[in-house]
Parts: sequence; C-alpha cells; structure tokens
Amino acid sequence: MNFRSDNTAGAHPAILEALAKANEGHALSYGDDDWTRRLEGAFRDLFGQKVAVFLTATGTAANAISLAAMAPPWGAIFCHREAHVETDEAGAPEFFSGGAKLVLIDGAHAKITPEGLEEALTRNLRGVHSVKAAALTLTQCTERGASYTAEEIARLADVAHRENIGVHVDGARFANAVAYLGATPRSLTIDAGVDVMSFGATKNGALAAEAILVFEPKRVDEIARRRKRGGHLLSKHRFVAAQMLAYLENGLWLHNAARANGLAQRIAQAAGDWVSAPAESNHVFLKAGVDALAKLRAAGAEFYDWGAPGSGEARLVVAWNQSEADVDSFCALVRALRSQG
Amino acid sequence: MNFRSDNTAGAHPAILEALAKANEGHALSYGDDDWTRRLEGAFRDLFGQKVAVFLTATGTAANAISLAAMAPPWGAIFCHREAHVETDEAGAPEFFSGGAKLVLIDGAHAKITPEGLEEALTRNLRGVHSVKAAALTLTQCTERGASYTAEEIARLADVAHRENIGVHVDGARFANAVAYLGATPRSLTIDAGVDVMSFGATKNGALAAEAILVFEPKRVDEIARRRKRGGHLLSKHRFVAAQMLAYLENGLWLHNAARANGLAQRIAQAAGDWVSAPAESNHVFLKAGVDALAKLRAAGAEFYDWGAPGSGEARLVVAWNQSEADVDSFCALVRALRSQG
Amino acid sequence: MNFRSDNTAGAHPAILEALAKANEGHALSYGDDDWTRRLEGAFRDLFGQKVAVFLTATGTAANAISLAAMAPPWGAIFCHREAHVETDEAGAPEFFSGGAKLVLIDGAHAKITPEGLEEALTRNLRGVHSVKAAALTLTQCTERGASYTAEEIARLADVAHRENIGVHVDGARFANAVAYLGATPRSLTIDAGVDVMSFGATKNGALAAEAILVFEPKRVDEIARRRKRGGHLLSKHRFVAAQMLAYLENGLWLHNAARANGLAQRIAQAAGDWVSAPAESNHVFLKAGVDALAKLRAAGAEFYDWGAPGSGEARLVVAWNQSEADVDSFCALVRALRSQG
Amino acid sequence: MNFRSDNTAGAHPAILEALAKANEGHALSYGDDDWTRRLEGAFRDLFGQKVAVFLTATGTAANAISLAAMAPPWGAIFCHREAHVETDEAGAPEFFSGGAKLVLIDGAHAKITPEGLEEALTRNLRGVHSVKAAALTLTQCTERGASYTAEEIARLADVAHRENIGVHVDGARFANAVAYLGATPRSLTIDAGVDVMSFGATKNGALAAEAILVFEPKRVDEIARRRKRGGHLLSKHRFVAAQMLAYLENGLWLHNAARANGLAQRIAQAAGDWVSAPAESNHVFLKAGVDALAKLRAAGAEFYDWGAPGSGEARLVVAWNQSEADVDSFCALVRALRSQG
Repeated sequence: MNFRSDNTAGAHPAILEALAKANEGHALSYGDDDWTRRLEGAFRDLFGQKVAVFLTATGTAANAISLAAMAPPWGAIFCHREAHVETDEAGAPEFFSGGAKLVLIDGAHAKITPEGLEEALTRNLRGVHSVKAAALTLTQCTERGASYTAEEIARLADVAHRENIGVHVDGARFANAVAYLGATPRSLTIDAGVDVMSFGATKNGALAAEAILVFEPKRVDEIARRRKRGGHLLSKHRFVAAQMLAYLENGLWLHNAARANGLAQRIAQAAGDWVSAPAESNHVFLKAGVDALAKLRAAGAEFYDWGAPGSGEARLVVAWNQSEADVDSFCALVRALRSQG
Repeated sequence: MNFRSDNTAGAHPAILEALAKANEGHALSYGDDDWTRRLEGAFRDLFGQKVAVFLTATGTAANAISLAAMAPPWGAIFCHREAHVETDEAGAPEFFSGGAKLVLIDGAHAKITPEGLEEALTRNLRGVHSVKAAALTLTQCTERGASYTAEEIARLADVAHRENIGVHVDGARFANAVAYLGATPRSLTIDAGVDVMSFGATKNGALAAEAILVFEPKRVDEIARRRKRGGHLLSKHRFVAAQMLAYLENGLWLHNAARANGLAQRIAQAAGDWVSAPAESNHVFLKAGVDALAKLRAAGAEFYDWGAPGSGEARLVVAWNQSEADVDSFCALVRALRSQG
Repeated sequence: MNFRSDNTAGAHPAILEALAKANEGHALSYGDDDWTRRLEGAFRDLFGQKVAVFLTATGTAANAISLAAMAPPWGAIFCHREAHVETDEAGAPEFFSGGAKLVLIDGAHAKITPEGLEEALTRNLRGVHSVKAAALTLTQCTERGASYTAEEIARLADVAHRENIGVHVDGARFANAVAYLGATPRSLTIDAGVDVMSFGATKNGALAAEAILVFEPKRVDEIARRRKRGGHLLSKHRFVAAQMLAYLENGLWLHNAARANGLAQRIAQAAGDWVSAPAESNHVFLKAGVDALAKLRAAGAEFYDWGAPGSGEARLVVAWNQSEADVDSFCALVRALRSQG
Repeated sequence: MNFRSDNTAGAHPAILEALAKANEGHALSYGDDDWTRRLEGAFRDLFGQKVAVFLTATGTAANAISLAAMAPPWGAIFCHREAHVETDEAGAPEFFSGGAKLVLIDGAHAKITPEGLEEALTRNLRGVHSVKAAALTLTQCTERGASYTAEEIARLADVAHRENIGVHVDGARFANAVAYLGATPRSLTIDAGVDVMSFGATKNGALAAEAILVFEPKRVDEIARRRKRGGHLLSKHRFVAAQMLAYLENGLWLHNAARANGLAQRIAQAAGDWVSAPAESNHVFLKAGVDALAKLRAAGAEFYDWGAPGSGEARLVVAWNQSEADVDSFCALVRALRSQG
C-alpha cells in the first residue's frame, strides 16, 4: 500500500513499446525528426491551434525555463506559498531567471484567489526600488489536490493581464485536472488566458517526458535558447517525443488520470470527515490524527505526513498503476479505524 | 552512408531491455533505488575506488554542472578554442557558473598543450581586475578526433594543480579514447590528476544517459545541489541508472567504441593522405578538396564540412551501429576518387 | 518640516573638507593609497582587532556583496519580511548571489526573534529539493526604528551558528543603534557573533560612502572579487576612504547619530500614545489616524505613510542636520492636534 | 614623472566647488533633484536631442549595465581582444548579463575592423547551439591610444545593424577622442549609429562620475532597473549629477582632454620612431627597448610595461593635470637616450 508519490510508479507499457519502435533506424538529432513533428500535430489537435512545443526530461526544467522566459531577473513571479516551484525545486526558477523573486500568496487548498493576487501586486509597486510584477504561476492540480476551474483561471488571468503580466500553469498533473473537471485542455488554458504551460507526463505514465507549451509566439525563440543553454535539449530527441506521442495517443493520458482520480475518490469516500482538502485529483489529504496515522502505517500503508509537525494530517497519492487491491485494503483499514474512533 | 553524427544512431538493444526490466514494480524516486546503488558499485569497480556519481540526461548538463562546481562566477575556465563547451553548448558553462569566462587556447588537433596552458594562465594574473584561474577542461576524444594519452593528461594536470586549479574531462566519447589507447579508465583520470569528469553514454549506445563522476569529495554536495536546481535530477531515476548499468555491464561500452573506432580506421586507410587529423577515435577528418566532397555527396554520402568555408575538409563520424556495408561502400568511393585524382 | 528620509540631507562640512584635502597630489588608484590604509587603522581601533574593509558607494552594494559571499546561489538568506534587502533593493541580493532565496520571517517592530528564525529554518530542510540555509541578515536599526541589543543579536547568532549559517548586519543606520544603546561597536558585532556587516555613513553625513566590514577572514578574497566584478571598486578610491575617515574621526558618526536620535525622541515625547513603534533611533512612527496626518501635512510637514493603505500611520525620519526649529514646530503641531483629539 | 594612469590624478577644482555648492539644503534622493534635471538638459544640448542619462560611480558599472541591457544571457558581445571590458573588469559584463559571452576580435591598435566583425559574426551562426549575436562594443579611445573616426564607427555600425545587433561605445576617454578628432559628440555616436554609450568623466577630472547615455528609447526602463538592482543608483544623487554638470559646463571636459592630448603629442614628437601606436589621445606607446626603459625609470619616470614580457614596450598616460615640467623633463630624457642610441 504505497501512496507516497506518483513518481514511484514505472512507465505504461504503451510508452515502452513506443520507445522500442522509435529505436528503428537513424534519425536526425535535436528535434529534427518525425516523432517530434508528429507530436506537434498531436498538440495542435488537442488544443485546436498551433502550439509551440519544447520537450524536457523533468518538470522542474519545464517550469523554470517557462518562468525565466516570462520574468526578467528583476521580475516578481507570483505563486502560492505551497507551490512546487517555491518549495521543491531548489530555487530553479531563481536560477534560470537570473534571480527573479517568488512573491508568495496564501489561499485555501493551495489555490490563489484574485483577491490574494491583487494584494500581492499592490505590495510591489515601488518603481525601481521593488521588483517588477512579471508572471503568475498556478499549479494544476494544486499541491493540496484541488483543481482550478476554467472560470477561476480566467478571473486570475484577467487580473494578471490587466497588470501586463503573463500567466503560467505548472501542469505536472494537468491530466488529473482535465479528467476531474471534464473540461477540454483548451478551455483550461488558451481560452482562460494562459500564456505558457508545463504539460506533465512523467507522473502519469511516462519515463521522463514533460512539455513546455507556448501559446504566445513572442516567447518562442527565447525558450528554445534557454532550453539548449540549460542542457535540456536532448540529442536523441525522438525518444522523448515518442514517449509524449504515446501518452497522447488513444487518450492514454486521460485514461490513466481518470483511473487514479477514481481510486482517490474511493479512498475519500471511505475516509469521510477525515478528508481535509478537496478530492479533485489523484491526491487525498486525511486529517486522521497522529494515532490513526500510526496505526495505518503499522498495517502496511506508506504515505507522507503533511502540514506542520504533529498535525496528524497525511497526504496520499494514487499512482496511475495503483492496484485496486491496495486501495481497497486501505479503505477497509480506514473504515475499521473510523468505526473504532 | 550517413556519417553526420553519432547522435543520429538509436540505442543498443541491451539498453532498451534494461529499461523494460527496470519498469517492473515501484521504486523510490530521485535516486534512492537499487539501480542507482548498483551503478555506484559498477563505477567503483571500473575505477578501483569509490566515485560519486551524478546522472543527467544530456552531456551539456554534465559538463556545465561540473564546471560550475569548479569555477566561481569570477573564474576562468581554460579550454581549447574548438571545445564543445565553447562552440556548441550555447553558453551553458557561463549560465551554470553564473558568468565564468571561457579562456580559449589554441593547439593542433583541438588538443591543449602544457605550453598553451601556461601562456593562458599568465595572461590572467591581474588580481581583482582579471578573472581568476579556476579550471581546465579537456575533451576526450578531442573535437578533431585525437585522444589524450595518460602522460599528456598528467602533464597538463601538473600545470593546473600547481596553479591550484581543478581538471575536468568532457568524456562525451571517453569510451572511444579508452578503446583506442588500450588504457584503463583510471589511468586516464584519477591517476593522471583528473578531478571531475563527464562520462558519456548517449553517443555510444544509450538513449539519454550521462554521468558526472567526482573523484574529489569536496565538490560532491555542491554538484548534488546544482543538478537538482538545474532541473537535471530525474524523478524516475531508475530509468537513467538502468541505461548506464547496461552500458557498463559486459563491457558493452568498450565493445561499441572499439567497433566504431575500427570502422573509422578502415576509412582512414582508404583515404590515405586525405586524412587531415589523427584517426584516434570514431572520427575521420578528410581534406579531400571541394570537388571530391561534392562527388562523395553526389554518390550518397552524408557528412558535415569542417573548418573554414571552402576549406574542402570534411568530418565523418562512425556510429556504434554503423553498418559495415556503409563503410565499405564509402571506402570504395574514396579509393575510386583518389585513383582518378 | 521635511521628515521624509535621511537621504535628503547633504554632507557634513567636515566630510567635504576631507575631500578637498584628499585632492592634493597624485595617489595610486583602486585602494592602494594612504587614506585607505589609515581607514583600516581607524576601523581596527574602533573594533579592537584587524577588520577587512571594503568600501562602496551605496548600501545596496554593501548588502548584496556581503550576502552573496555568505550564500551560494542555492542558499536561503533569512531576513525580516520588512527588511530593506527584501523590499527596497530591487532584488539586489538575488542578483549578486546568483539567485539565492530570501526567506521571510515575521516579528514585531521588524525584529527577528530566535523563535521566528527556528521556525523558518525548519521549513527548509528538504535536502536537495529545498534551498539550503546559508545566512541570517539583521537590520540595525530595524525598518521600524528598533535597535537590537547585544544580547538579542547573540541569541540569534547562536541559533544561526548552530545551523552553520553566517550572520550579517545591515548597518545602514548602525550609528543610531550604537548611540541609542550606548554600547560599543564591538559588543554589537564581533562579540555577539556577527560575521560580516554593512557599515553605513551616507545617511548620517557622508556623500556616498559605505563599508563592508568582514570579521571572518575566509570570505575576504571572495568579497574583493565580487566588489570589483560588481563595478563597486572606485578607481579614485582615496575619495571614498577620505569620507569614511572623516566620518569616524573625532566621533563625528556618533555625534550626528546621537543628535538625530535625541530630536526623534523629542517628537516621540510630544506624540505620546500616537507612537506606534519603539523610538530607539532617528525614526518615529505615529499612528495618528488619517485625519491627523492630513492636518500635519496641511501645516507643512512632509513624511511618508506607513503600513497598509489607510492605516493612518506615518514614518518620520530625523536627518543628522535636521533643524531644531523644524522639530519644535512639528512637536507643537502634534501637541495641538492631540489636545484637540 | 608619473605616467602610470589618469586614475591617479585628483579632481578638477571646479568639480569640488560644484560639490560644495550642491551641498546646500535638502534635495530629494535617487535622482529626483534639480542637478539631475539640469544635467539632462546639458546632455540634450550636447547631443542635439533628448538623451536618457543614467549616472554611476564607475566605468565598469556603466559598461556592464549597458551591455547587459543589449545582450541576453545567451548573447554574444563582440569586442576587441584587448578591450577593457574583456581584460580589466573581472568579468563584469558576464555578471550583469547573466553569462553572455565576449567574442574576441583582433585588429591593429586595439581597433575592430568591419572585416574582423564579419568574421566573428560568421563563427556564431549555429542556431541554438551557439550564442546569439547581440552587441558590438567599441572602446573610444582604444586601449592602444587610437581614436575611431565617425566614418569608421558608421561602417562598423552598418555591419552590426544589418545583423540586428546593437552598438555600444565604452567612452571612458571619449573626451580625448572628441578633442583629438575635432568632431562633435553627436557625429561620433548618434549619427554614426551608436545605440548606448558609457560617457566617462572620472579619468578626466571628476571624483567618481560616469554616465550611461541611451540613444534608443526601448532600453531605458531596463537600464533603470539594472542600475538600481546592481547597487549603482546613488541615494544622494545630486552629488554625482553636480560633478557631471561641472564637467560639461564651460567645456571643461574638452579643455582637460585637449590639454592632455597636446602633452602626449609633445612626448610622441620627442620619441620619434620609438612611437609604436597612433598618438591620438592622452596615451603614448613607446617601443624603446628594455634597456632604454630601464634608464628612463632610473631617471625617475613611472609607467607600465605593455605587451608581452620582455617586449621593451611601454605605455605612458598623461593625466588632465600633468605638469608641463614633468612632460618636458621626460622629453629631454627621451631625446638624450635616442641621440645616444
């Protein structure tokens, strides 16, 4: 019963098969290959318009390169206090941007609200003495398992664009949000005012494949330069393109995400009022208390504590290939503990 | 007859099989897995001592992270004028180091000599007004196909260490040098005074796998930090470790390199006095003249021009999986042209 | 009645005279001159030991160079949420450090407490995934006019050094703290565990002269390099050294600060319970209400609002050369308004 | 007979007087003062159009901020191999730009030619694999005492603008070139295609005052941000503005430069065929031989050797306030030595 992270799961068989097929014959390097061209077509179909695509092997790279292209070194990047770019990427946005400042915003369930954004913008209006508002980045789904709706994103993007700053989405788990909301990728991005996004595949079934999608042409050359200079342009590029192609083909990405979401909701139903954050993705947060968490672990469940030390809260992440048996065993454990409590 | 680059070849079947095997079951992320631990053992065996290993997906990343850990922002990194880090990495060493300066040194066959290094060191001794000597980086094999012998490296490292600067080897094609020289990996690195190296696998049969090997403990923590911050720590780390393991196991790395070297020498023998640089790797440089190159291309050979425009010189690279038929056809073409000339 | 900032005051006549005297004859450039050597002696006398001195023309430069020498690019610099380095230096610490992260700590009167520091340290212990604790910076006096006592600094430095991080003091108004506390410079720095400080003179009577004082030898070479590379090593260095010498000679620095502090306290006494922060420097904060502030301005007083918009709070800064008449007129105004209220 | 550098001279009395006058009364900080406004008018008059002016205290800052605004981190800055920005600024352009690469060009008398520029441009056209051509910087006068004519600059700017790269002039000794050429400042800059320049005053009579002049509006906001973030926006800004105003008023800048140039030519005439570079500024280069240089030093002359060790070449710099007696004594020495030789 390992619910630590979706990073611990392997790759989907279809993606491994795609690698093997891509291995036949020679191909030009650095993206001048058929797989890359077909992938551009696949993203065009998915978003209903031409989209510039830049593949990388990690989500940190996709986020940091995107944000660096949106914020000058003296820029302010607005993000939630719990955002992955702030807490888990070792300062990669600061590195790639040449020292931009992440300005932190609070908000329930790791979501930014228009009011929170307005307040943060107001704090940074001191001309050359303060950093200059440059970009807003949203995590989809959030670090607390919530999904931003198209309307929520549009309202935030309105505030951002009014101040002439760009909007980025860290979509490491974008598939889970799309599956949960039943919305189109386009409605959650282009139509809502998103300028650049990190489109993740690694956590949801790939080996190592993430895409920077650029909806705004003016940033394309800069992102191409930054990717190469950052060491993120793979020489045998067909192998990362082939992964992403297989991920998109036949709806594999949504299939995997919907499955994981469904299992997460099964856990949430079992956990009832222990659930401490919206179950809108493949994450479940349980405020079960320190004792109950200890008992779950003693029974073989693996997961991370969350929040302040001693808070008695846990995060469970359901992987794309999590076994139903695991989930059902865990649900049974939870029900038993709750009925005792 | 595609001799453009070893980047256009695919991956060796043994490496794809290793990926498939590594895909079974869960594994902790970010390098806390069995494949990574076994790989550390494999490198320990190869070098005869414990070596810190940091995997990345590109050689540019391996080089830039290594050099950034060796040179402060105000440092001078000494390299050959034709070095890959200078000409083909879009300024990655400058980016990762925060603006260190690459000081260029001339030398035949893209090799640095002790005299060239001494001269460059002398030019940068103006206290706080100049950059500070920090690192020497050598490409093995060089961009002109030459291999540094252990003695050559040791003499350069002596000069470097006397000035208290570190020695790095860009070993994107280290296997080809080891195979050509018949030397041990240790004799060409640790015993010769190398502090950090980039150990390449991608060009010689992997999909995307390079290793930073650190022979000097004091730089280990910094490299770990820089790799993560640069977005180069892969979450599903077992997949890159599995590639490198398969590459080392059963001597696959040396087998592939020796095969490519041998075919390159076959071309060199056919080309006789057209050969314009040492055939000490999987590269052959031919000064055949503009007309002869045009005829070779007309007959179906693919390769890059080299040197100044109109120089009539070409670079041919033999991939690990180049067909013998390709090589023999090319040799026949060359012989025919030369007998006409 | 201009109480906007101590930056609006000119220079003390003794400092202009020192410039004129320093202008006689030739002198070697870049600090190899008699004034610089005498200044090193003056600081040695002031602190009771040899101190490395690096002059700059701005406080932002002194702070940013110091912090960059204490924190690697992946480091965390702990500071108060209202610290000048965070709010008013346009991201200079991020620029000079190559992207270190300023981790913000709350605390009354812009003071950091040991508990606040402990909590912030705990938040950043996620190995390579988070930034690495590197430096603590304190503003003396704080942005809310408070002075850290030697005991307070020592307690903070104990926490910092236990975690192996350095302690920096932004002493843009260090003179005001020394004058207020009646303490020795040494007791507030070296003896309390401070490693590096920015020692300000500009706000307190110089034209443009700040000193980085380094109490810990290992950082000296790096700071020398960073100063030059940042464009902060003045060629005609004698002129900035002469300013700082005149500032220290005959206790001018403490005389100026004590005078301004005394006038600030005169205002604080007149303002009674309007005073909203400790009057421990040349600053006075008045929570007089929006109407009273408007009336003060209508009567000719100039000052900045403070805190959130509409808070009814103002900051008054007394310059080293503020006229007593100004202060007395302002006090009379305040008394009159309060008796009406 | 000190001919080491123009940095060893003090300030002109008129400039010290201007400081004293600027010290009367309060003035708003950070450039919102009368002196700064008057200076903008003075530069407008000098160049015949509105010019954005950013003052700094050092030439390194002026150069590095200018170049950083012209070149992205992945940009190539073309400069002469002997340029001050390459050899004497400790990598400041790399620091401010976030790691741009200085691409070095050879040329007689430290001058870049159109052919040299074309060749360097051609070397850097490898798409994302090489750095991107971004800026050309010329030193006026050059490090070998030569002055670029308006025509020479225009030809270089034509090449640069054709490739869409900006043109910067490091005018640390711009006054000497204007005085030597008898040209207008405008003809050597705006009319010749210069986009941004560093306009020096420190070496020619100021204490510490340099100006970035921006002839192209699109870079203005960025330079303002970079100056503040680099710690180069002086708080008591009136004092640096007052220096520059006095420097421009009554033609002081040209008077000082013409005087120094004239004395340099007096030396050149005495030195005859020892003169090894064009005497087109306040510099004289003498290839007198090792013995003659030793004799000159033994007789009390101070100067730096130039070129490779043992070359027997020396650089003499005449300061704005060099005594005629010094120059005449030196000329007599030279004549005596030459008549012996």
